[in-house]
Amino acid sequence: MTPRPALIGVDWGSTNLRAMLVGDDATVLARRSAEVGAASLPSGTHAAELARVIGDWRGDGLPVVVCGMAGARNGWREVPYLPCPANAAALHAGLVEVEPGVCLVPGVKCEDGDALRDVMRGEETQAIGLAPAADDELVLCPGTHSKWIRVVDGHISTFRTCVTGELFAALWPRWQATAPIPDAPAWPAFERGVEAGRASPLPTALFSARIGYVAGTLAAGEVYDYLSGLVIGAEIAACADLVPAACRLVGAPALARRYARALALCGVAVAAVDAEACVARGLLRVSNGTLRA
Amino acid sequence: MTPRPALIGVDWGSTNLRAMLVGDDATVLARRSAEVGAASLPSGTHAAELARVIGDWRGDGLPVVVCGMAGARNGWREVPYLPCPANAAALHAGLVEVEPGVCLVPGVKCEDGDALRDVMRGEETQAIGLAPAADDELVLCPGTHSKWIRVVDGHISTFRTCVTGELFAALWPRWQATAPIPDAPAWPAFERGVEAGRASPLPTALFSARIGYVAGTLAAGEVYDYLSGLVIGAEIAACADLVPAACRLVGAPALARRYARALALCGVAVAAVDAEACVARGLLRVSNGTLRA
Repeated sequence: MTPRPALIGVDWGSTNLRAMLVGDDATVLARRSAEVGAASLPSGTHAAELARVIGDWRGDGLPVVVCGMAGARNGWREVPYLPCPANAAALHAGLVEVEPGVCLVPGVKCEDGDALRDVMRGEETQAIGLAPAADDELVLCPGTHSKWIRVVDGHISTFRTCVTGELFAALWPRWQATAPIPDAPAWPAFERGVEAGRASPLPTALFSARIGYVAGTLAAGEVYDYLSGLVIGAEIAACADLVPAACRLVGAPALARRYARALALCGVAVAAVDAEACVARGLLRVSNGTLRA
Repeated sequence: MTPRPALIGVDWGSTNLRAMLVGDDATVLARRSAEVGAASLPSGTHAAELARVIGDWRGDGLPVVVCGMAGARNGWREVPYLPCPANAAALHAGLVEVEPGVCLVPGVKCEDGDALRDVMRGEETQAIGLAPAADDELVLCPGTHSKWIRVVDGHISTFRTCVTGELFAALWPRWQATAPIPDAPAWPAFERGVEAGRASPLPTALFSARIGYVAGTLAAGEVYDYLSGLVIGAEIAACADLVPAACRLVGAPALARRYARALALCGVAVAAVDAEACVARGLLRVSNGTLRA
């Protein structure tokens, strides 16, 4: 049976808007994107910008559900974070209608008593899109701010952020002048980096790249992947306590391959899943308020 | 008794040349500097550059002793690293004469079997300049690449590098647009940063700055000092096992004040000493091959 359009789903992040026409079985029937960050638009212009991208899809009165930084303080409108544990029904109840038929998904927070311990916007929708109806698993969303999300019986129970992508982006330019980016990943250097990142705290582990370079045991063409492995290894060491038996990875293929390789080195088997499919199903589930989608 | 000039000491680093006319009691009788990095000069031009700065001091045939990156691979001439343990006599024996009367001080390395574990160039001279003739202490040289140097009975016995200054320099620009540098250190925010940097691994601890900013518990004007405390706290956590009863700190006053405050929070009492005096005495001791200077 051909799926019928059920929803216009939007993942509106800091740098991009990605829109999907989502079928009633959560398949993506069409997609569009625009290089316009939710936080960089002037206040009051988000509705017009969104209409520009998906206006012609709305003819049938399809609801629009938006996750990501559109709900941040400097986005379209600030939507309060929901506390953990949070499931599809809680996210549904927390939807904020910013104009007729257009809702923003709330982010999720972790608290220690009164203190805010962690926050996310966007990844909660991926985790809900991936969530099985029962059991306990870890959903890992790698990126600038990687999220390690524990999902128990369809609820986001806790999560932790690592600034791995930000660290790499900040540190790599200091090497660029001397070390080229290789055409293909230098996997042995990557794996040595993972081991170094697990073996000692980051402030000391990072110097091992310089030492390897000085000693001639790390070639210029290997530095990029060694550093990549090192920050991922440090991330795994910082979060391994969160991983139950099962672990799934939501991310772009090239990055997912790095994480899968690093996790395998650490004895964690992981299945990679497509990010777009998770967002589409997550938005449909949040829109419906149930995992039945 | 007025000290007589005994030596021309030079600390030639990656970005600066600092020259001192050193008296026979290790006092600095005169000083000059030039913004010329040892690694950025074309090969074959170091002698002329040095002569430009201190040529007129050499009339009396004073020896010139140079520590720092001048001895690195892309410096004046590569001088092999000496293994730990290394004392003034070993550094003296490792001096390399690059032209008549001008010697480069070797750097020092730590090894694990055949593997190079750590390296330094320049800080070994500070540590030897500070070394008491007996006993066990930690000499901390904070900076881009902080060195924690254990000195036992006048020998550098082991050391560890943390890339703390490099991390801060890489990460701070990502905040600059939203967070100003305060006129005076925001010490409470600095101390909260130290605690955060000690409490969790760096990849997660760093996100606490964003969380504090989102939660409104970290003001824009506090981010700079919070981040500074955080990377220093992570460094202390990574190196605390190296600290015996006594600890001395060699560094510029503003940075030394931050470290002293952070170490005090961690229960480590530390005395700050003047870096220039350490280099001057260290170069004199290496030149003589003994701590009697």
